[in-house]
Amino acid sequence: MGYDDLPSQNLVQAEIPEGAIVISNDTGTAPGLILEEGGKAVVLLPGVPHEMRSMFDAQVADYINDRFRERLNPTLLRTYNTCGIPESLLAEKLAKSIADFPVDVFTAFLPGLEGVSIRVTTPDSDGEGLERLKLCGSLIMPVIAPYYCSTGKRDIVETLARILVAQGKTLAVGESCTGGLISKRITDYPGSSSFFKGGVVAYGSLTKSGILKIEESIMEEKGIVSEEVAALLAENSANLMEADFGIGLTGVAGPDGGTEDNPVGTICYSVVGHGKVRSFRKIFGGDRIAIRTRGSQAALFSLLQILTDKLD
Amino acid sequence: MGYDDLPSQNLVQAEIPEGAIVISNDTGTAPGLILEEGGKAVVLLPGVPHEMRSMFDAQVADYINDRFRERLNPTLLRTYNTCGIPESLLAEKLAKSIADFPVDVFTAFLPGLEGVSIRVTTPDSDGEGLERLKLCGSLIMPVIAPYYCSTGKRDIVETLARILVAQGKTLAVGESCTGGLISKRITDYPGSSSFFKGGVVAYGSLTKSGILKIEESIMEEKGIVSEEVAALLAENSANLMEADFGIGLTGVAGPDGGTEDNPVGTICYSVVGHGKVRSFRKIFGGDRIAIRTRGSQAALFSLLQILTDKLD
Repeated sequence: MGYDDLPSQNLVQAEIPEGAIVISNDTGTAPGLILEEGGKAVVLLPGVPHEMRSMFDAQVADYINDRFRERLNPTLLRTYNTCGIPESLLAEKLAKSIADFPVDVFTAFLPGLEGVSIRVTTPDSDGEGLERLKLCGSLIMPVIAPYYCSTGKRDIVETLARILVAQGKTLAVGESCTGGLISKRITDYPGSSSFFKGGVVAYGSLTKSGILKIEESIMEEKGIVSEEVAALLAENSANLMEADFGIGLTGVAGPDGGTEDNPVGTICYSVVGHGKVRSFRKIFGGDRIAIRTRGSQAALFSLLQILTDKLD
Repeated sequence: MGYDDLPSQNLVQAEIPEGAIVISNDTGTAPGLILEEGGKAVVLLPGVPHEMRSMFDAQVADYINDRFRERLNPTLLRTYNTCGIPESLLAEKLAKSIADFPVDVFTAFLPGLEGVSIRVTTPDSDGEGLERLKLCGSLIMPVIAPYYCSTGKRDIVETLARILVAQGKTLAVGESCTGGLISKRITDYPGSSSFFKGGVVAYGSLTKSGILKIEESIMEEKGIVSEEVAALLAENSANLMEADFGIGLTGVAGPDGGTEDNPVGTICYSVVGHGKVRSFRKIFGGDRIAIRTRGSQAALFSLLQILTDKLD
């Protein structure tokens, strides 16, 4: 781990009670343990949430399924992630579909900064849960199609990655007030190097004019927070890094920097590619984190729409 | 919020029970409520964790303090955040200091991807808790000074920001496998535009050679994952964006891309400024998220050390 000494405290981590099952830890050093006796089990996992979760998902869930199958009451669920529509409007649009769901199906709307997710849950004690979920999906999908991003734990970036890789296309980003968040979200995805050429975080105006070659006269005339500058951020990034698609974003994330024309929350973003340039101006609510997250999601969602030809 | 329709469901959010205290929501639309009766209170907050937390911190904590002061058993705590030292070694180094703590003081070591935090807690029922915390601080600080990043909920970026602003210096970033994470973390900090010039996410080698002017012969000779390329990422970013300090980082975040020379987790990073160039090569454990987070933190920590002249 890059450290020279092995403190004696670490040796304690290597002690294993007799008969215990050891759960390996791929994201840290402290292993987990399972102690089983008389049809009961105690699972010990490290207290760091990140390590605990990855060990549960990778190993403990399967152990519980294998060992206690007959005592489990399995529940199936599927989650559909949407963008660009508020929870209440989505619920209104889906009211008819949900009324047609079989009994024993439960629907939850989960709003977050990246959009609203719809979670459909059903018990599987009769073995027909999967059929019920499929039926619900076929009722939901036509309604949410214009807002659909991904299914399950997948991020919109995973949907984008699949399409870009399948089409053999590449992407570049030029972002201002999101300050690297869009590039960071794209590169969170393992394998993004196969389609992501890179990004420029044009935080200072010098970076916009120097690296991204945006003429100062345009920034003065149209304003740094403008659809025109967003389009140039997208186009020039794509040209500079020889990418097929480009995303550009500029705005006011706050808490300071708002003006009458561009209040805090104003985000101008643009996507280029497929011979199109599409630019938007929106005002997002919330604090700095919310505005940056909502802005990055809106820009990624517009790229998805241009890739799937939903942006005319 | 940029939407045209107001669905009838939203009107329900505007209903207030008689006599309730309304808690305004600065990060969303649903307000909170406090219902008080007979010296008891029920606090209702929105279910979105992000909104709930910000409303609790901004308004509910003060309400509870004002209203129920005489029934509270106040506890004081202070947290010291460190970087570059593992939990067990830190605990060993601090054993003597902790043995000298007054009774009624509790110490916890909290390891995370950004380092290890030391939390010191003491009850304040005798009104002398603050004195005890100060004493503990004076015992801890000399030991942890080489690893110290920040206190409390502050990120290392806040410490860096204060120093850069006080010195009137600026910063630029050139990062490869962290893919925007370092820039994103810097710009998470409100007011970062006063010292942050921008960044280049040099994910493809074309971006390294094209925008950042790193000669392909150097990348071939030394390898893209090398201290030499990290130093050029730092230097050329700083030069290109006319910044006083530069951070450069290149590595293998995984899960693929590891080689015998550069296994997954290898991170080369460099900081330039104050007439110095300091470069490092480390191997971090964990998955992609852990490696990227640990790498970004190590690079930011080295900048802190060069700013405070701890890197010779």
